[in-house]
Amino acid sequence: MLELLLVAVGGGLGAAARFVVDGEIRARHNGGFPWGTFVVNVTGSFLIGLFSTLFSTLTWYGVPADVARLVQFALTVGLCGGYTTFSTATVESVRLAQSGRLRLALANTLGTLLVTVLAATAGVGVGGLFV
Amino acid sequence: MLELLLVAVGGGLGAAARFVVDGEIRARHNGGFPWGTFVVNVTGSFLIGLFSTLFSTLTWYGVPADVARLVQFALTVGLCGGYTTFSTATVESVRLAQSGRLRLALANTLGTLLVTVLAATAGVGVGGLFV
Repeated sequence: MLELLLVAVGGGLGAAARFVVDGEIRARHNGGFPWGTFVVNVTGSFLIGLFSTLFSTLTWYGVPADVARLVQFALTVGLCGGYTTFSTATVESVRLAQSGRLRLALANTLGTLLVTVLAATAGVGVGGLFV
Repeated sequence: MLELLLVAVGGGLGAAARFVVDGEIRARHNGGFPWGTFVVNVTGSFLIGLFSTLFSTLTWYGVPADVARLVQFALTVGLCGGYTTFSTATVESVRLAQSGRLRLALANTLGTLLVTVLAATAGVGVGGLFV
């Protein structure tokens, strides 16, 4: 139950952060490509890689294992899960395709995929330097 | 400010729903493939396609346009955004690849991509039947 509550709070904060970041980027780039969602998914993928790796270091600083696990849940499943979004990226690609901009739709889909995998790998890698 | 609050509440509820759905699926399929995240992203992509299309029908029932817009924000950016997750899907693919299960990693990445796009298209299509 506590896990569920932490995931909900983390998810709410993550979704709010996504809304702010996406809004700021949209205000600057109102072209065809959904840069806001792209940047959110890339930065969130880096962070989840980082958090999921760094999590094990919490116990080194005397944090009990069960508390460390709850912190990990709040940060990864909650915060990063709520911050990043698959559905928005997908529907944006569908909308681009519907409006005949197939190249942008494909660039959005494959570009997000490639760069988020690289970002998550980078996050795991950077976290690994401290573990 | 109200938009941000609605996105946060919707995102929190979405993240909690993801946690429950993912947990139920994990309890049944504890094999190598991350079915939980897959199902969450596919169903969330269908729902965001549906909600973003049905949104325009709210005003037909006398809902003021600005209220309809807030409902749309809460359901798409908030609920669906918090329910689906890009970062978990990405990091699960990275973990599969790290453990040498490259085929499963690729199947997860490309399979999620393909099926979520189909699901969002289906959602837009089903919504379009009522618009």
